Amino acid sequence: MPAPSGFKPKKSVALSGVEAGTTALCTVGRSGSDLHYRGYDILDIAERCEFEEIAHLLIHERLPTRAQLAAYRKRLSTLRGLPEETRAVLEHVPASAHPMDVMRTGCSALGAVLPEAEDHGLAGARDIADRLIACFGSMLLYWYHYSHNRRRIETSTDDDSIGGHFLHLLHGKPPGASWVKAMHTSLNLYAEHEFNASTFAARVIAGTGADMHSAVTGAIGALKGPKHGGANEVGFEVMNRYATPDEAESDIVRRLAARETVIGFGHPVYTVADPRNRIIKEVARRLSQEAGDMRMFDIADRIEAVMMREKNMFANLDWFSAVSYHRMGVPTAMFTPVFVIARTTGWAAHVIEQRLDNKIIRPTAVYTGPEDLEFVPIDRRT
Amino acid sequence: MPAPSGFKPKKSVALSGVEAGTTALCTVGRSGSDLHYRGYDILDIAERCEFEEIAHLLIHERLPTRAQLAAYRKRLSTLRGLPEETRAVLEHVPASAHPMDVMRTGCSALGAVLPEAEDHGLAGARDIADRLIACFGSMLLYWYHYSHNRRRIETSTDDDSIGGHFLHLLHGKPPGASWVKAMHTSLNLYAEHEFNASTFAARVIAGTGADMHSAVTGAIGALKGPKHGGANEVGFEVMNRYATPDEAESDIVRRLAARETVIGFGHPVYTVADPRNRIIKEVARRLSQEAGDMRMFDIADRIEAVMMREKNMFANLDWFSAVSYHRMGVPTAMFTPVFVIARTTGWAAHVIEQRLDNKIIRPTAVYTGPEDLEFVPIDRRT
Repeated sequence: MPAPSGFKPKKSVALSGVEAGTTALCTVGRSGSDLHYRGYDILDIAERCEFEEIAHLLIHERLPTRAQLAAYRKRLSTLRGLPEETRAVLEHVPASAHPMDVMRTGCSALGAVLPEAEDHGLAGARDIADRLIACFGSMLLYWYHYSHNRRRIETSTDDDSIGGHFLHLLHGKPPGASWVKAMHTSLNLYAEHEFNASTFAARVIAGTGADMHSAVTGAIGALKGPKHGGANEVGFEVMNRYATPDEAESDIVRRLAARETVIGFGHPVYTVADPRNRIIKEVARRLSQEAGDMRMFDIADRIEAVMMREKNMFANLDWFSAVSYHRMGVPTAMFTPVFVIARTTGWAAHVIEQRLDNKIIRPTAVYTGPEDLEFVPIDRRT
Repeated sequence: MPAPSGFKPKKSVALSGVEAGTTALCTVGRSGSDLHYRGYDILDIAERCEFEEIAHLLIHERLPTRAQLAAYRKRLSTLRGLPEETRAVLEHVPASAHPMDVMRTGCSALGAVLPEAEDHGLAGARDIADRLIACFGSMLLYWYHYSHNRRRIETSTDDDSIGGHFLHLLHGKPPGASWVKAMHTSLNLYAEHEFNASTFAARVIAGTGADMHSAVTGAIGALKGPKHGGANEVGFEVMNRYATPDEAESDIVRRLAARETVIGFGHPVYTVADPRNRIIKEVARRLSQEAGDMRMFDIADRIEAVMMREKNMFANLDWFSAVSYHRMGVPTAMFTPVFVIARTTGWAAHVIEQRLDNKIIRPTAVYTGPEDLEFVPIDRRT
């Protein structure tokens, strides 16, 4: 599904650099090109940790031991099923729906069936976060197979990982080890990014004392936007336009001359480079080599070089994520839902922080409208 | 349904006084106790306009003429029906669900079935806003009657107004004129309030380029919080504890001495008084007099006097709204959904403003976590 064609490139950022709260979860772009999760450098953890380790770090505050990881994986695997009511809701979302609308609706419906306990305790909040990361893949793919083929799939599998479970349900068979590893790295890279717009939306919602499902549902809506998570779908459409690197180069040069924006490059909080790019680029390269098909990778690689040469702009995480997901057979419209699965770890951790901080987020506005209008009764209006 | 019992009173406000964008919709609290919608004083319009006039002012930018209002009312009345898929989704939300979870899920599901056009044009956005205010009552009450009594109600009625339609579907018969008028005034008072938390959530979501349904769905989640829209349910529980004004007075004095917070009093953006209180208080008084039952009103009135005397705190809009809704037979858990119907006009107008402003909202955070942790491989963790 294409992004809205009326989408205009980002003109500017509101509240840029304004401190809206505290976090112990993440620093981003301090040196122009660095990212840390709870003090750990993304370059150290992205490829050496499974996604479940990073989920444990973000939701449960520390990297797990081997035994803790085994227990956590086991518990997550028990949370893959969906309540009957949620499955029924998903069966009534049409095949024409955008997968992000499915995620948003499924998350909200799950919250209506299995609401957070009224004490809003931290253990309960973490339980919900764990269930969401475990079952979001089930939700999307249950809807997908039912709406497209009227097949009610079994969402409980014996896969070891969330990424493996997702690919298993998507393709109907367990993925190979290299795809599972690629999913771990990709999900790790997308897991957390400080006060980005979807996370900030989750914190604004949580600030009113609302429940975890409300906050995550709102965050999914924010992530859908083409200036945010929706960008990786758009990035794929860009590279998919071309048959060869040379064709891509000449067309991109022409578009840049016409002052067109190319999605997938630059980032509001990195000035030098997106540190995640070099990691996901190697993932994309390995997956392409394994498949014996470098075409898409080579096109993406050439456009990256052209953007640096012509505009001094660096590729962000979305650019080679698109190549990676494409290589693993993930449909374009599911790119952003995969981002949801990853980022739910960060969203949930931020919701918990906002709750502990106990502040409502309520800025003010600059008023630009008319002053003191005289009220005119309806029969005298023209 | 009670609000979360673990809810702690608001400690403070984040981004208080910080300008997060521009609006031509509303000024609030400039003199300590005033509120204007697009330049019109709330004291001029709350009782002299029908809600559809205020919806037209907010969504369509001007107060309508008599002919425009008639056409608008007619169009809104055609939008009361729900798509079959949305009704089916609502039928699978259990009777135990919180009505705000129903609203959130119904709005999201409607967006999956009837998504916004991809060009995100302003006319389309306004059409969605009109449909939402027209059908939110249908959504809530279709679910309510189906989940509680397995009755599939007809949601199209010949009521002239959104408030009348709501009461008609709730009680199964058209309401009297005084209740319709009370609904107009109440919905007018709740329609808009500048950058409150739910509206700000909607703007953060819209800032990414996301669609109208995503923004409103997120705003519903934010409004659910007991520090925001959820407060009017809590206010009702407070006044409902007592049999007489004297009993209320002595208990409230005791609770204040124990430093307990009483919900329904004070407001972060009004320093002197909530200008809406005196209007809704007269609505509550009239409805109580008509019913020949002043008990709840007198208790609320006494607590208001005690709060002013003991704490110099004024009643906000939520306080006598609770009395008014109670008098019209609205179940407590539907108080905040009625707020949703009203505030959708403001939310939608803010979403349109944010879209025209074309800014993503992305603040920064103060980092309070650990620095530069050394990565420990899993087998060496303890």
